[in-house]
Amino acid sequence: MYKVNIGRKILSANEEYANENKRFLIENKKLCLNMISSPGSGKTTILTRTIKELKDKIQIGVIEGDIQTDLDAQRIKATKAPAIQINTKGACHLSAAQIHKALANLPIEKLDLIFIENVGNLVCPSAFELGENGKVVVLSVPEGDDKPVKYPAIFAKSKALLINKIDLLNPSRDIDFDIEKVKNDARKLNKDIQIFSLSAKSGEGMDKWYDWLIKGIEKTRNS
Amino acid sequence: MYKVNIGRKILSANEEYANENKRFLIENKKLCLNMISSPGSGKTTILTRTIKELKDKIQIGVIEGDIQTDLDAQRIKATKAPAIQINTKGACHLSAAQIHKALANLPIEKLDLIFIENVGNLVCPSAFELGENGKVVVLSVPEGDDKPVKYPAIFAKSKALLINKIDLLNPSRDIDFDIEKVKNDARKLNKDIQIFSLSAKSGEGMDKWYDWLIKGIEKTRNS
Repeated sequence: MYKVNIGRKILSANEEYANENKRFLIENKKLCLNMISSPGSGKTTILTRTIKELKDKIQIGVIEGDIQTDLDAQRIKATKAPAIQINTKGACHLSAAQIHKALANLPIEKLDLIFIENVGNLVCPSAFELGENGKVVVLSVPEGDDKPVKYPAIFAKSKALLINKIDLLNPSRDIDFDIEKVKNDARKLNKDIQIFSLSAKSGEGMDKWYDWLIKGIEKTRNS
Repeated sequence: MYKVNIGRKILSANEEYANENKRFLIENKKLCLNMISSPGSGKTTILTRTIKELKDKIQIGVIEGDIQTDLDAQRIKATKAPAIQINTKGACHLSAAQIHKALANLPIEKLDLIFIENVGNLVCPSAFELGENGKVVVLSVPEGDDKPVKYPAIFAKSKALLINKIDLLNPSRDIDFDIEKVKNDARKLNKDIQIFSLSAKSGEGMDKWYDWLIKGIEKTRNS
C-alpha cells in the first residue's frame, strides 16, 4: 500500500511560516506573545486594559484570532490600538501562514509589542508554533484548579501563566479554587514559568504583568 | 500528480464507527448524550449531581474523555455509577472508535442513559459524530454571553443548551452576563434547541433538565 505521511507535511508547512515570522520579529526587534486559553477566560479584557494602562509607555498591536465575528477586534480598536482580525472559519487554532499575512499588515515600525490572541481553545493552539517569542496561557478562576493537570501541554510550553478573575476569590463568593495548587502543578510541568495572579476587571495584580512585559520588550530591543 | 483525499477518508472511518454505535444504541433502546463544553464549565459536576438525584429512577453510565488523568472518572465512580475513562493523549476530541470500545465495556443492559463527557473544547468535538442520540452543549456564566455568536457550530448542532453556574448571576456578584442574549443567539442558530438555566452547585433549575432526560429515555424506549 502506498503511504503518504500527511501529518508531517502539514506541520512542516506551518513550521516554515513560523520560522519566517520568527526571523521577521528578530530583524525588527519586536516582542510577540501568543495568548492561549479557553473561551471566556478574559484574554480580550486583559489586552484592552493592558493597552490602555501602558499607552504612554509602549505601543501595542494585536492580531485577533476568532472562528467567527470581529467582536474582539472591535474591542481592541476601541482602545485605538491597531488590530487585525483573522476569522478561521471553523478552524480551532491560528496558523503561522495567517500570522505571516497579518504581521505584514500591522504598522510594525510603530509597535513595541504584538499580541496574538489565539482562538479560544486550551488544546489545539498549543501544537502550532506561530513564530512568536513566547506563549502566555490564561486560566481564569471559575474554570477550576485542575486545569494544569488535565491540559498539561500548554502549561508546559508557556513562558507565563496569567491566573485571571482573582476578584472571584473573595471569600464571600464561594468559588473553590486552590491557587497554590495551580501554581505548584504549573511549575511541576514547567519550572521556569512566570505566574501572575490578577484581575483584568479590578486591575489587581496587573502591575507585575506590565513590569514583565516591559522587561521583555527591553530585552528584545537589546538582543 | 497523484491526489489522495485524506480528509474524506478519515471522516469516513469515524462515520463508520459512529453509524455502528448508533445501530447499537437503537438495538438496545438506550439514550446516549454527548456533553460538549469548554474546560471548566461544569460538565462533571452536572453529571455527578444528575446521577445522585436520579439514582432511584434511572441508571446512568458515563464515558469520560480527557486528554490526561482519570480525575473526572474518579468523581463519577464516587457516585457508584459505572464509568469508563478514555485518555486521548493529546487529541482534542473523542472519536467514534473510542466510543465503540467503551460502549462494549459498559454494563449496557442495566443502564437507561449513557453520557459521553467529551474533552473540554468548544470547537473540535462538534465536528466528530460519535453515534450519540444528541449533543448537549454547556456554557457557564463566567465564560461570557458572546459565546454562541463566536463559537456557533456547537450551538447549531446541539439538542440542548445548559447555561450553568447561574448562582453567579446573583446581583451582589458583578458578573456581566445577559442570559436573554444567550438564549436569543442560540435560538437564532438552532430554533429547536432546548435551553435549561441551572446551577449544578446550588441545584437551582436542575428539575427541568431531569424532566427532559426522563422524557428522552421514555421516547427512546418506546421507539
